[in-house]
Amino acid sequence: MKILLTGGAGFIGARLARTLLKQGQLNGRAISELHIADLFAPPSDLSTDPRVREHTGQMLDQAKLFEHGFDAVFHLASAVSGECELDFELGLRSNLDSTRALLEGLRKAGNVPRLVFASSVAVFGPDAANPLPDLVADSTLPSPQTSYGTHKLMCEYLIADYTRKGFIDGRSARLMTVTVRPGKPNGAASSFFSGIIREPLAGVETTCPVDPDVTHPVSSPSNTVQGLITVFEASRDALGGRLALNLPGLNVRVGDMLQALEDVAGLQVRQRVRFERDERIAGIVANWARGAATGRAAALGLRPDASFKTIIEQYIADCSQPGYPADALQGMKR
Amino acid sequence: MKILLTGGAGFIGARLARTLLKQGQLNGRAISELHIADLFAPPSDLSTDPRVREHTGQMLDQAKLFEHGFDAVFHLASAVSGECELDFELGLRSNLDSTRALLEGLRKAGNVPRLVFASSVAVFGPDAANPLPDLVADSTLPSPQTSYGTHKLMCEYLIADYTRKGFIDGRSARLMTVTVRPGKPNGAASSFFSGIIREPLAGVETTCPVDPDVTHPVSSPSNTVQGLITVFEASRDALGGRLALNLPGLNVRVGDMLQALEDVAGLQVRQRVRFERDERIAGIVANWARGAATGRAAALGLRPDASFKTIIEQYIADCSQPGYPADALQGMKR
Repeated sequence: MKILLTGGAGFIGARLARTLLKQGQLNGRAISELHIADLFAPPSDLSTDPRVREHTGQMLDQAKLFEHGFDAVFHLASAVSGECELDFELGLRSNLDSTRALLEGLRKAGNVPRLVFASSVAVFGPDAANPLPDLVADSTLPSPQTSYGTHKLMCEYLIADYTRKGFIDGRSARLMTVTVRPGKPNGAASSFFSGIIREPLAGVETTCPVDPDVTHPVSSPSNTVQGLITVFEASRDALGGRLALNLPGLNVRVGDMLQALEDVAGLQVRQRVRFERDERIAGIVANWARGAATGRAAALGLRPDASFKTIIEQYIADCSQPGYPADALQGMKR
Repeated sequence: MKILLTGGAGFIGARLARTLLKQGQLNGRAISELHIADLFAPPSDLSTDPRVREHTGQMLDQAKLFEHGFDAVFHLASAVSGECELDFELGLRSNLDSTRALLEGLRKAGNVPRLVFASSVAVFGPDAANPLPDLVADSTLPSPQTSYGTHKLMCEYLIADYTRKGFIDGRSARLMTVTVRPGKPNGAASSFFSGIIREPLAGVETTCPVDPDVTHPVSSPSNTVQGLITVFEASRDALGGRLALNLPGLNVRVGDMLQALEDVAGLQVRQRVRFERDERIAGIVANWARGAATGRAAALGLRPDASFKTIIEQYIADCSQPGYPADALQGMKR
């Protein structure tokens, strides 16, 4: 089985690649080739695997890519929300045009590959006549509040139509906010959902820009990857239609995230987080989903993470793996 | 005020053009120029109006069009549903790429014109996990069953995002099935909604391909044109958000459409319609909205046509105007 993974050099993409290579098969078929397409080269543990093929560069420049005749596609490549708000044309090009180029390449290849598209909970938002429900469901009317969410939603519907026409067997799964991400804080408004855990564990003081009562649906990296694989392997009947489905989210209060941090790592670690309201970020977050309902994903056997404590424990376990900085848990040792 | 009207040579487009030229103003501002862009030249009564400017050809070839600095845009140009099902690339090009070219042209012009986009009730349909409600509402989750409906929906969301960004002041209004259309029967699955009235009035025998109990939301040409103008003139607050709204539909049973025909034109005319089920068409229509709820359009003062009888009477009155064939009402005179 030949798999194409776009965005395979990114955090979730590389984790999905490692999981696929480790299990050696997908939906019962041995993985012979894993093609990783991204702007950057994948991490070295991936690029040295004999099954991995690298395609570094813009998707829009990869017309020959589709001559490989992929059986399976995971489409994760995307410019992120904050970038697309700053650069409107980047969003159109990277998230809309690139997906169209991918779909056209697959259509013209003609072998009807199965595709999973990583959409986002960012398709949801409030509009004057359509306030957000407490929990967003698969059947909630999307109302994106960013170009990123808009383009994700447009791609969902385009993929549903390519599927209806029989050009691909496409499935769109909306990712919840993934936490705990490694690395440095970035400009994304959601950055703090990882930062308020990662930074104090590393011994670094940080601020939380929203109130402790803010709630949001989140998912650990491993639960997110499992969701993508399960959606890929599901039968068309089990999926319950062509429309996008929400991956499971753990609906968690920011205050409870910090309590879990204290439970896992102690009061001293927790106290490295200071509440300092940032009106810009708090305003953006106020337009986000406050929680997600269990829906079609549950029918596929997918569940949210058991607790935010297990999400933190997953991050701590991950920190012992290659690629994580040596001082990632420095703050627990003091 | 300079207005751009795409699709202005078509049936609804030309009627909208005539209405605008006759009233001489839009939203209280005198109309100085009405630019009609379409694949074909507009009817002669329009092309001879000194305010009309013709732009004949593909929208994608009209880069210079936007140098005119339009204050107002009605975007009606579209390949129709049946064509797009037969020619997938035509739909992408004519309905998606052309709208993007239009939006980019308006964004780059930089004067934030107001735009009304003619979307369609075809955005709605059933999906396995999301059956159609009895009445589709503004808040109903769309699930298009055609490429035409898919591309219309994608454009709605793109227009909402251009509006959010402040590039245009866009409004998407979903047209109900317009009846009675003049002209010949065509390949569209909805063709019979006009044909079962138009043909017997002309003295021509015809068939109805669906059962008399089928219901569907319809709108007369004049009510549809009034809806587009009202949506244009509404304040942003009155619109109730950036998402698309449904224009009003008269929810009518096919059997009652024929009863109205008998009431207006007599039993002899009605008897020219024979029920002859066409499984292909009946199957398509079974996936269409069975009715539309009164929603945000009602808050703007828009109402469905009073009855199907008044819709037929409007058609009969229209037939005396230039451009309609002399024998359009031949069947009433026998």
